[in-house]
Amino acid sequence: MANFKGHALPGSFFLLFGLWWSVKYPLRHTLQKRQNGRKQNVPLFFKKLDLIEGVLKTFFAFVGIMAEQFVPDGPHGHLYDEDWVKLMNWQHSTMYLFYGISGIADILSSAPLPTPAGLDRLALSIALFVEGFLFYFHLHNRPPLDQHIHSLLLVAVFGGAASTLLEVFMKNNTLLELLRSSLAILQGTWFYQIGFVLYPLNGNLWELDNHGNIMFITMCYCWHYAVALLIVGINFSLVWWVTRRCGGRQGSEIEIGLRKTNHHDSSSQKALLQESEEE
Amino acid sequence: MANFKGHALPGSFFLLFGLWWSVKYPLRHTLQKRQNGRKQNVPLFFKKLDLIEGVLKTFFAFVGIMAEQFVPDGPHGHLYDEDWVKLMNWQHSTMYLFYGISGIADILSSAPLPTPAGLDRLALSIALFVEGFLFYFHLHNRPPLDQHIHSLLLVAVFGGAASTLLEVFMKNNTLLELLRSSLAILQGTWFYQIGFVLYPLNGNLWELDNHGNIMFITMCYCWHYAVALLIVGINFSLVWWVTRRCGGRQGSEIEIGLRKTNHHDSSSQKALLQESEEE
Amino acid sequence: MANFKGHALPGSFFLLFGLWWSVKYPLRHTLQKRQNGRKQNVPLFFKKLDLIEGVLKTFFAFVGIMAEQFVPDGPHGHLYDEDWVKLMNWQHSTMYLFYGISGIADILSSAPLPTPAGLDRLALSIALFVEGFLFYFHLHNRPPLDQHIHSLLLVAVFGGAASTLLEVFMKNNTLLELLRSSLAILQGTWFYQIGFVLYPLNGNLWELDNHGNIMFITMCYCWHYAVALLIVGINFSLVWWVTRRCGGRQGSEIEIGLRKTNHHDSSSQKALLQESEEE
Amino acid sequence: MANFKGHALPGSFFLLFGLWWSVKYPLRHTLQKRQNGRKQNVPLFFKKLDLIEGVLKTFFAFVGIMAEQFVPDGPHGHLYDEDWVKLMNWQHSTMYLFYGISGIADILSSAPLPTPAGLDRLALSIALFVEGFLFYFHLHNRPPLDQHIHSLLLVAVFGGAASTLLEVFMKNNTLLELLRSSLAILQGTWFYQIGFVLYPLNGNLWELDNHGNIMFITMCYCWHYAVALLIVGINFSLVWWVTRRCGGRQGSEIEIGLRKTNHHDSSSQKALLQESEEE
Repeated sequence: MANFKGHALPGSFFLLFGLWWSVKYPLRHTLQKRQNGRKQNVPLFFKKLDLIEGVLKTFFAFVGIMAEQFVPDGPHGHLYDEDWVKLMNWQHSTMYLFYGISGIADILSSAPLPTPAGLDRLALSIALFVEGFLFYFHLHNRPPLDQHIHSLLLVAVFGGAASTLLEVFMKNNTLLELLRSSLAILQGTWFYQIGFVLYPLNGNLWELDNHGNIMFITMCYCWHYAVALLIVGINFSLVWWVTRRCGGRQGSEIEIGLRKTNHHDSSSQKALLQESEEE
Repeated sequence: MANFKGHALPGSFFLLFGLWWSVKYPLRHTLQKRQNGRKQNVPLFFKKLDLIEGVLKTFFAFVGIMAEQFVPDGPHGHLYDEDWVKLMNWQHSTMYLFYGISGIADILSSAPLPTPAGLDRLALSIALFVEGFLFYFHLHNRPPLDQHIHSLLLVAVFGGAASTLLEVFMKNNTLLELLRSSLAILQGTWFYQIGFVLYPLNGNLWELDNHGNIMFITMCYCWHYAVALLIVGINFSLVWWVTRRCGGRQGSEIEIGLRKTNHHDSSSQKALLQESEEE
Repeated sequence: MANFKGHALPGSFFLLFGLWWSVKYPLRHTLQKRQNGRKQNVPLFFKKLDLIEGVLKTFFAFVGIMAEQFVPDGPHGHLYDEDWVKLMNWQHSTMYLFYGISGIADILSSAPLPTPAGLDRLALSIALFVEGFLFYFHLHNRPPLDQHIHSLLLVAVFGGAASTLLEVFMKNNTLLELLRSSLAILQGTWFYQIGFVLYPLNGNLWELDNHGNIMFITMCYCWHYAVALLIVGINFSLVWWVTRRCGGRQGSEIEIGLRKTNHHDSSSQKALLQESEEE
Repeated sequence: MANFKGHALPGSFFLLFGLWWSVKYPLRHTLQKRQNGRKQNVPLFFKKLDLIEGVLKTFFAFVGIMAEQFVPDGPHGHLYDEDWVKLMNWQHSTMYLFYGISGIADILSSAPLPTPAGLDRLALSIALFVEGFLFYFHLHNRPPLDQHIHSLLLVAVFGGAASTLLEVFMKNNTLLELLRSSLAILQGTWFYQIGFVLYPLNGNLWELDNHGNIMFITMCYCWHYAVALLIVGINFSLVWWVTRRCGGRQGSEIEIGLRKTNHHDSSSQKALLQESEEE
């Protein structure tokens, strides 16, 4: 969808996930540090969150595919009719498809199934790689600024793919997870920026072959990232501050829960611990 | 062999190995998870499979070299005769040669020899790298679609080389092995796709410089990969489901076997365990 | 600032940090080797040094931003005034901004806060990457020598970004830290070299499209690096030699300190040890 | 030295080191496997070999620099004389210089000094990288075949730099060391191949812009590597076979040596073991 909405939709998805991750991972990090030595219920709680996240991701991917296919000027499921029909929309649908696969991998990983550890991260990394791959071959024959503003996106996309691939091998590395959060926020805000530059709401079109514009946009990309880092930092601090304030009460609740379970089934706890260590 | 068969032959090889791997590795993964703590006979069984695989790979590579050399319009072993003779066929022979070397490395690795751990993976990685290397310098002076459809192959080839190289250092990482399986299936089906596009069986030639065709082919590549991921997922699920159904009986058989050996030679078992851990 | 001073300023910063690191890390390495098994006060001392380093880095970044903005021909904070205002200075300010963020990350990492381990290294790696990223898109439409001499800088910048990223995952690897020191010294001396070549103090301008000049500059870059390696090597040797000379007295002082604390609070020591191992 | 000898000289150096490594590392690998649990004298013996290797490398680098400077048409130490003097020879001297630095790092690493573990590998990796870096900017304005045949070299050079860098972090990984050996042999034979093609001894000049020649040379490069792999494989087998034949006698000698030392100073042995594990 070559208009503002077509960029705002994926932008909102990435922004949403980036913001959510920048809260989720600091939360897990702080809870794990605090409950050092007794991680029983933290993994279970986060498994449920991962399940919900996977379902939402799959749903959003479905919404994205449907939107690309059935907007008024979309291909409505037709691929070839004397010539290729609306290939741009088909390419965007393909991008969403791989995020859908990533969502399904999230669901499978958080279910009690014998999936290999790290499947969810690998699927996300593949989805990001496919997005970058399609964008890369997407940019021919466009005006300089259009090409440049999209190719800048590739830095966040391939950077995200690489850092998520690293997560497959270094599980629960908070720093990598925060890096991913910041790159997702960057993608989100940059999709909006692309929308504002190429389809300005006030109608003042940018000159697409002005070298000054290209230089500004390059720098602007760095500012977006500085803001993304700031957001991640603020969310980390907030989570830390909130869990510390609620820490006394919560800590004792957990201890009570532990005492109760301690008597009954210490074997099942070990299984859980083992499970959480394996992943 | 610049025709449909010349692409179907390597395509079948890659597809065969990809499908086989997508069964073999989930099988090992599930068996190891089930027989946690008593891995005695699993590694031996898979060593034998690896041996057979190596022999087959070497044989297929030999078939490939022979086919490239002795097809009617092949070089028949002549390299230079006033000018270079059929360099394309020679290059393809060279690619098969390195898969032959990889097959020999598989045989050596699965034999009781003091080969360094990971030799088979490194040899496969080198074979994939050489394939990509030769393809890369292979594509000059061709029409755009021909060049593009072959260069897309490089993503699967170099991706496979990189992921197999990672396996050298992270042995028995199921996820990397599944990634390799999926990339091999992708290569297999894409060789067929190249054959269908460049040498269509129904005779309707594709326009080789149509931008729409190039855009479709790029997207089609992603669809091939989505199907490859689906196949790997289905095979994983089937293997898991079948081993679970047969698990009760098999598990007890193994236990009986264990009881028998336990009395006799616990020292040889330790040696086996050590061996399987070393690799 | 397109003049000699504009290159001498960042050059001095990098040179200063490179030289400082080439003393700091050998010092930590030698002290840790010597006090094997009793690392109590070494980490605390280096935490304080890291704090000071972070404060200085933030201050230098602030100085850099101010200098770029408020030199006589600077933008004085104006970004757009009918056309983009002095984008070069704005880009340089952006580079300094990310070093400022890196300085703040250093301060946070060395403070007793629950920051994820390796945050300081990741922030430095991002700062180097952003510097390289902006430089890369900075070089269009310049004479060959100007373009070449700046693009050589990218080797040190991206090399530094990559090696610092490795440090996130391999903490306290002395070799990587020395590599970083040498690359920082290289950047520092090369900024001076760029200044000398493009804005010669004696006024003899270099021919900017002479192939010989480009070949010499390429080789000259390697010589700079050889000198940087020499400096790091000399500093390492000096530190080793000095700590060995002072070792006897210092060692016994530390032992006395240890004996004193041993009685009082062995629990706090354990906490410290744990902390230093975690990082 | 743009003649056959100028390529034969570095070719011989690389070939010599590649062949030597393909004997040394299998030897260490087999001895360590055989003397499992009692590695006392193996590391000491190889430390001495490393020292000799470092001295030879430094000497060869010195010979290389002298040859490039003081051949009849060399620069004889003059760098600038109205114009740059013989920059090619200066660039080659610079390449040799970094191999000299690598040699010195080998000497320092094998001496009983507190050098960081992996220094020798890092220095070799830097030397290979600098060689590749200078070659990369070396190739402008040359005929296609000349440019292609040199750029193929870069695959071995940068591949060697990357694999040697990996060795910094994965010490004593036999597979990586064999990979390095094979890439050094490849570089050695390829230097000879470049000499034969560009300065044919029989005087039959190759057509430098014939596409067939370029295609053949690309394939020929793969054949060189297949031969390099074969050589490494043969040397590995020979070493294994020879050590097995001599194993009985040698093994018992070592055991006698062990018995003797066991009584006297078990503490010094532990120190040695610790040292060999640290590295």
